[in-house]
Amino acid sequence: MAEITLNSQALKHNLNIISSHIGANIELGAVLKDNAYGHGLEQIALLARDYGIKSVFVKNYAEALRISQYFPLITAFYGMPEGKFPKNIAFVINDKAHIAALPRGTKVELKVNAGMNRNGIESSEIYTFIELILQNGLELVGVFCHNGYGDDVDSAFEQGQKRFAEIKQEVRGLSQKYGFKLPRFHSLSSSGAVRAAANKGGISDDLVRIGIAMYGYLDVNFQNPVSANLQKVAALYADRVATRIAQKGARIGYSGCTSLERESVISTYDIGYGDGFFRVNERHKVYTKEGYQILPRSSMDCFSCLCDKHRICVFDNATPIAKAFDTISYEVLTRLSPAIKRTII
Amino acid sequence: MAEITLNSQALKHNLNIISSHIGANIELGAVLKDNAYGHGLEQIALLARDYGIKSVFVKNYAEALRISQYFPLITAFYGMPEGKFPKNIAFVINDKAHIAALPRGTKVELKVNAGMNRNGIESSEIYTFIELILQNGLELVGVFCHNGYGDDVDSAFEQGQKRFAEIKQEVRGLSQKYGFKLPRFHSLSSSGAVRAAANKGGISDDLVRIGIAMYGYLDVNFQNPVSANLQKVAALYADRVATRIAQKGARIGYSGCTSLERESVISTYDIGYGDGFFRVNERHKVYTKEGYQILPRSSMDCFSCLCDKHRICVFDNATPIAKAFDTISYEVLTRLSPAIKRTII
Repeated sequence: MAEITLNSQALKHNLNIISSHIGANIELGAVLKDNAYGHGLEQIALLARDYGIKSVFVKNYAEALRISQYFPLITAFYGMPEGKFPKNIAFVINDKAHIAALPRGTKVELKVNAGMNRNGIESSEIYTFIELILQNGLELVGVFCHNGYGDDVDSAFEQGQKRFAEIKQEVRGLSQKYGFKLPRFHSLSSSGAVRAAANKGGISDDLVRIGIAMYGYLDVNFQNPVSANLQKVAALYADRVATRIAQKGARIGYSGCTSLERESVISTYDIGYGDGFFRVNERHKVYTKEGYQILPRSSMDCFSCLCDKHRICVFDNATPIAKAFDTISYEVLTRLSPAIKRTII
Repeated sequence: MAEITLNSQALKHNLNIISSHIGANIELGAVLKDNAYGHGLEQIALLARDYGIKSVFVKNYAEALRISQYFPLITAFYGMPEGKFPKNIAFVINDKAHIAALPRGTKVELKVNAGMNRNGIESSEIYTFIELILQNGLELVGVFCHNGYGDDVDSAFEQGQKRFAEIKQEVRGLSQKYGFKLPRFHSLSSSGAVRAAANKGGISDDLVRIGIAMYGYLDVNFQNPVSANLQKVAALYADRVATRIAQKGARIGYSGCTSLERESVISTYDIGYGDGFFRVNERHKVYTKEGYQILPRSSMDCFSCLCDKHRICVFDNATPIAKAFDTISYEVLTRLSPAIKRTII
């Protein structure tokens, strides 16, 4: 049965490398959203807890509930709770309706737009929102933004950092004026953190949110000492379903668009697009780790290769797969079906 | 919070249309594998049961267990059981190792290769496999193949049918000779069933396996009275996360590769590639049902549109989305995250 192995040593190694690059005075927050980028929420949560991570970020309330016992603080990026929830889950405020939806005493983090023009309130609204948060008896534990330009050599990154510095200044002023506890500040994900750490002055936030780099990937357009030293955490394996010797000219799979050039041993393996692996059609050239071509067209539950191994490694590096499908490693990883077995090694 | 609605009337309508096309003497089996093609296994199982479906097909043991109380017979296409299982789950034999792995009394279906050269045993091995199945005390409830050429105007479809007719003949002979109960025969999925039903002689199998057409899709390269009359069962909705007025020239999302031509109202919605919707980059043109462009690049958990509606319909027809990503509707549907809420309407 298909399986995803999770290399616990690789994850630890990655967190060590990142930690030594950004400095010990900055808290490492782990981004576990979207089933830990497809790796498996519970499994990665356990490994992150054992590493000593205290703050994590998940997609929503449902994900937060699944790992609420492992961390002092879990922030749910999207959506509001349904029913009761533990005190250590914080919800993100993007809109006034979110403030009204939460019971008094709930921990919240305020998201501010610092240039991505995606989520978050405008910086001109900070005062209004903090006042509303305080009036509604919510506990403001964080103010953050997301710098979406970390990957590129682009001055927009520095502009975003400058904007967040102004935001922090304003929040500090409000904290003194109204006497609320200063919330934590964070604006940097993996690429931004690695980039800012190397810049003059380093990182001036309290925490960085490490997602993709923790899983072993950091494909960025700038030189840095981290990318090349990361180790991939996940590997996807498929097991043989059936095997046969097929004659020269035999057609394989849907619409028979692969035709054998010579008599060959051919087998099917139990990963298909129903498992979240991209569907391979006749316009893609996709190879397993050992170099076997995944013959087009792949099916919902299996693909065919010219080999008869009992188990093959579909990939232990999502980057070539991502390139074959004109996307990024994040998409290859996050779409892996949660129904595939995960094993920590 | 994002939601998938499942139109119960559409599903019933589709099964009615298919049933009247193929004839009342052929059993309709429902294919519920891969989370019911992404629709939601439990929800579609309930609707199929209420319609009167008796035989269903799922991906594996884990899926079979989830709906074992709803149907007299559930066939798991892939993998073997782990631990105990109800008597009404049948497992598919693709290999001798599968026979050895099952306890006596287990229901099995034997899969035979009829030209796809994908799964199944060779037709020359039927005698050997049936003998082994009987010796091991397994109950042979079905012999089937999968005709993978149903979509195309291609003589390979008829060759596959001819091969399956020969297979059935051989199994009938063995049944008489060895005195085992004649298993059911099936070889046709949606496209094949619709195609064979219109051919001279109609369908000579006991059952057809209806998957994609039940969900409202049948994109085939031949004229037929079914395709145009099907109704889509699933629609995907996303809810607004944040909204703002952004200035002319404002850059949106990762790497800021969308730039606004004029001052605009822009909002984010809570569906991203982490929810199983394809990632939209600057080489894709993708529109929601109401015609709002999903602005590149979409994120893991959200996308941006130039509108401020509270809820938008991302799609109620997967076909245009599939075309935008050079794939088929099946992939768009099956990859929808099981974590998205499903609501039967």
